Amino acid sequence: MTAPNRNTLWARAIVDELVRGGVTAACVSPGSRSTPLTVAFAEHEDVRVFSHLDERAAAYFALGRARRTGEVTPLVCTSGTAAANYHPAVLEADQSRVPLLALTADRPPELRDSGANQTADQEKLYGDAVRWYKDLPEPEAEARKLRSLRTTVARALTAAEGTDPGPVHLNVPFRKPLEPTEVPGDVPDDLESLAAAGRTNAAGGAGSGTGGVGTTSPPAFVERAQGAPELPDSEIRSLADDLGVERGLIVAGPADPHEIDPEAVVALSHATGFPILADPLSGLRFGGHNRVAPVLGGYDAYLDEAVTADWPDPEAVLRIGASPTSKPLRKYLARTDAQQLVVDPAGKWREAEFTASDLVVADPSRLAEALARIVAGPDSAAWRDLWAEAERTHWDAVDAHEGLFEGGIVADAVAEAPEPTTLFVSNSMPVRDLDRFARPSPDAVTALGNRGVSGIDGITSTALGAGSATTDHLTLVIGDLAYYHDMNGLLAVARCDVDATIVLLDNDGGGIFHMLPIESFDPPFTEQFKTPHGIDFEPTGELYGLEYERVDGREAFVDAYTEAVAGEGSTVVEVATDAADSHGTRDELRAQVIAELAGGSTN
Amino acid sequence: MTAPNRNTLWARAIVDELVRGGVTAACVSPGSRSTPLTVAFAEHEDVRVFSHLDERAAAYFALGRARRTGEVTPLVCTSGTAAANYHPAVLEADQSRVPLLALTADRPPELRDSGANQTADQEKLYGDAVRWYKDLPEPEAEARKLRSLRTTVARALTAAEGTDPGPVHLNVPFRKPLEPTEVPGDVPDDLESLAAAGRTNAAGGAGSGTGGVGTTSPPAFVERAQGAPELPDSEIRSLADDLGVERGLIVAGPADPHEIDPEAVVALSHATGFPILADPLSGLRFGGHNRVAPVLGGYDAYLDEAVTADWPDPEAVLRIGASPTSKPLRKYLARTDAQQLVVDPAGKWREAEFTASDLVVADPSRLAEALARIVAGPDSAAWRDLWAEAERTHWDAVDAHEGLFEGGIVADAVAEAPEPTTLFVSNSMPVRDLDRFARPSPDAVTALGNRGVSGIDGITSTALGAGSATTDHLTLVIGDLAYYHDMNGLLAVARCDVDATIVLLDNDGGGIFHMLPIESFDPPFTEQFKTPHGIDFEPTGELYGLEYERVDGREAFVDAYTEAVAGEGSTVVEVATDAADSHGTRDELRAQVIAELAGGSTN
Repeated sequence: MTAPNRNTLWARAIVDELVRGGVTAACVSPGSRSTPLTVAFAEHEDVRVFSHLDERAAAYFALGRARRTGEVTPLVCTSGTAAANYHPAVLEADQSRVPLLALTADRPPELRDSGANQTADQEKLYGDAVRWYKDLPEPEAEARKLRSLRTTVARALTAAEGTDPGPVHLNVPFRKPLEPTEVPGDVPDDLESLAAAGRTNAAGGAGSGTGGVGTTSPPAFVERAQGAPELPDSEIRSLADDLGVERGLIVAGPADPHEIDPEAVVALSHATGFPILADPLSGLRFGGHNRVAPVLGGYDAYLDEAVTADWPDPEAVLRIGASPTSKPLRKYLARTDAQQLVVDPAGKWREAEFTASDLVVADPSRLAEALARIVAGPDSAAWRDLWAEAERTHWDAVDAHEGLFEGGIVADAVAEAPEPTTLFVSNSMPVRDLDRFARPSPDAVTALGNRGVSGIDGITSTALGAGSATTDHLTLVIGDLAYYHDMNGLLAVARCDVDATIVLLDNDGGGIFHMLPIESFDPPFTEQFKTPHGIDFEPTGELYGLEYERVDGREAFVDAYTEAVAGEGSTVVEVATDAADSHGTRDELRAQVIAELAGGSTN
Repeated sequence: MTAPNRNTLWARAIVDELVRGGVTAACVSPGSRSTPLTVAFAEHEDVRVFSHLDERAAAYFALGRARRTGEVTPLVCTSGTAAANYHPAVLEADQSRVPLLALTADRPPELRDSGANQTADQEKLYGDAVRWYKDLPEPEAEARKLRSLRTTVARALTAAEGTDPGPVHLNVPFRKPLEPTEVPGDVPDDLESLAAAGRTNAAGGAGSGTGGVGTTSPPAFVERAQGAPELPDSEIRSLADDLGVERGLIVAGPADPHEIDPEAVVALSHATGFPILADPLSGLRFGGHNRVAPVLGGYDAYLDEAVTADWPDPEAVLRIGASPTSKPLRKYLARTDAQQLVVDPAGKWREAEFTASDLVVADPSRLAEALARIVAGPDSAAWRDLWAEAERTHWDAVDAHEGLFEGGIVADAVAEAPEPTTLFVSNSMPVRDLDRFARPSPDAVTALGNRGVSGIDGITSTALGAGSATTDHLTLVIGDLAYYHDMNGLLAVARCDVDATIVLLDNDGGGIFHMLPIESFDPPFTEQFKTPHGIDFEPTGELYGLEYERVDGREAFVDAYTEAVAGEGSTVVEVATDAADSHGTRDELRAQVIAELAGGSTN
């Protein structure tokens, strides 16, 4: 590996080791201090560089891509406030376990806290939200330092992709010259040994040091292998006993595609007879496994005390993924007497009712497979029928309602999505509507959302980042506040060449506040909570090169949506809705389902 | 002070004490967890609430307002990523010493790190960037706790407005109900004593506890008085001796209006005969004091080694404010043999060449006044003439150039600004152009910029925040990348009722990179550094209710600009420029001035 100066050498080693370690794309924002890294990424043939002008959008785009793929997506920015713009996405990556790698360029040590321009304290900028932080040493063309550097890169990838995946922050100081300017004598002539970075065994493969000339990279300087927690057999047998009951449930909370294997969960459902309560973001609500398993999706409507008062309690609940989106589901689980087993590979607690009885630190897919092989219990058909009736009642009510409301549009967007589709849903209402109104189906729909911290920021960027990683059709369902919050993210449609169909539910403000008690205190409800803004979003089409369609009913929506997903390019399909009306419809449908179930047979 | 529940009482006490402590405005973003604070701000008659949908823009708006006024501007947001969106502005506030107060709502302790929705680790979220951090205790309707709360608020204001002003972070947990719902028994009946929070002396004035009914608030529960560092007389005499020389300079770096009194600096200039090298953001470049003092503004062009090689060195340099924007000035100071005195009330170091010889911890205005009274030195007319000639040469060259280039537009925007004007200039090129091409003048122009960390994010919001605090005309000069970065900030024009004339210098990408060596490495120069985006910004006019004018020459610009500043509402005047051409003109003018000065008499 030759280089005109130590900074170039240093940055090339970082990028080379990242690519050898599996990185295929990076999100880079323009800046001066980060020049060595930017140049190294740009010149590497095996990594795709997405250039973003707004670092907040860049970080969410990287988050979306990493969420969809499970692979580390590096971020590169210059010093100063640029790095702080990553913070929101870093928080989301922390809570939802998405592997991000923030590479923030910095001044060299002597210029920190000195009055030097564009200099902030970037040390531990993201606090405890990152899995690992390291302030890299100053670049030097010296064998041990380069070995240390490549080792650090490998450790960063390992920390980001471990059993508790998440963000990692490497702060990278550079001293001028930042450009690939020839500095005579700066990089010693014995490049061969520097390239190998002290490693002489051919298996290491770092000897050539030219990574990126071909389409497959040579092995990394540090090869990585990642284990996942598996229980000893005795514990698995004990858990199988716990699940050998008549009435059990599998609750699948939000989990990204790489986190949980749906087939393994379905196998356990088969073996136990337990229905799967599948959060829309669990990877279990939609997909081929639905053909053979009792996957439930209406619980958010029917799990009311009036309904469940007459139901027998479940005896055992196996919880995988994060805490479910549905509050009625969480409350139901809290009021049952069931043994609740939280399975979490990271050993963290994601159950804020604090009624779970067992914390099981294990890879959920492998555990499900292992349990499926040995679990044996009584027939649970009656228990399943109870849930099946509730499901039927809910979906019949939903199907019978053909009027315009937000939940209906969300349901239509899923039902009419081409296969395969990556579906991204915004907080705060779309994900709740997806939860309640998107019927489980075998369609190839990968539903994603930012449910780690559940912000309404960065939604568009996250969706487009997810879309950039797949050839799926991409549909984004988003409300007007979230759309406004990340309008900058729309630039990625053209700049990063990602097509999307964007369903914009415009109820002119924060619709979710109609669901909260603050609605009855006006003022300040309208001005400070509902916050109607009156923005006509149509000019965003012109600004960002999107088709922009407005529709005013469900039939018109389905027409416009199916046309949009069939066509080339990107389209915004805006549906003007009334938040209070939509909330009214949600309430009515729920009340109807509850009345039918509470008044009917409970098996 | 009556309240329906403890949260309402708690939040009212916070807001009441803030208003009694001098707060007149707050920036609030919609959210549920922050409901008690939002309601308390909204219902208080003596505080203006600016509602912002994007928390990043909210924080920069508050920064701009606090920068213009010197008064603490509180921010209110909900839990989660919302708070992280404040981080960029918090970094800028830290480095440029602007008093911000982030009030971030949070879950109660038992719900942190539990899997509860919209919950992130907000403790010490901004690290060392804040002057003070406190996680407030859980709200309670109890006298000592309320006294503690009001004391905490007073301390937060003191920390934000101290000798080293800056951001403060109070993390505020709330447990439901968040709304002002009546909770019987939650707030004891002996409200009178609670309202007084234990204070019985009438002077305290907290007894009525109804703050906000009238237009002036009663005294605060804790009255605050803030001192500033003053040197002992012996030290002042010693410094006066240091400055009793023939050749001296006063270098005024960036400082906000409340930081330095121009009259005091002018008095010192009179007494010493030293010229003032006035950064455009120092408060000394423009204003009435210019009529009577040698205020210089062309140094960025003529302080070249070819010119100064024949000049005698200055003997003493008094530096106030932050490090100057001008790199040629900083380099000049570094290569002189002068005694350099850095005056900093916070005792920090803001001089990254490390050639200053004295760190003087004192209030610069009071020190300047004190020195002016006693300093005495030899006649320095010859020294001043040297600088005056350089100035003349520069401004003659600038005046003679009538062609279109970015620096000319910036100069025109200042020259044609109505009085009084608050002028906000963006990083990265506009502030440099202002530095080199805006001639010192007695016009009432208050020039501001974000030179703490010098980001290109949040510029529009900061400008509009500054504008919200004054009846001045507001002009913003901004490049296309910064305009794109904070387009969301434009919503404040309508939503916060701030009019502005926005001069948009659109060179389609990062013009500053043409000034850096990376320009000669293409690729990746164009794609990763220059980053042309091709955005047609005209639809932003429709989106945000702005007039949008495009001009293509300086005369047309002056016409459109003078019409815009004279009219009602807000206007964007877009000037398409060529970054390379503009840089060429900067270079030519500089070369011409240097040639004239280096070849001519040096006194």
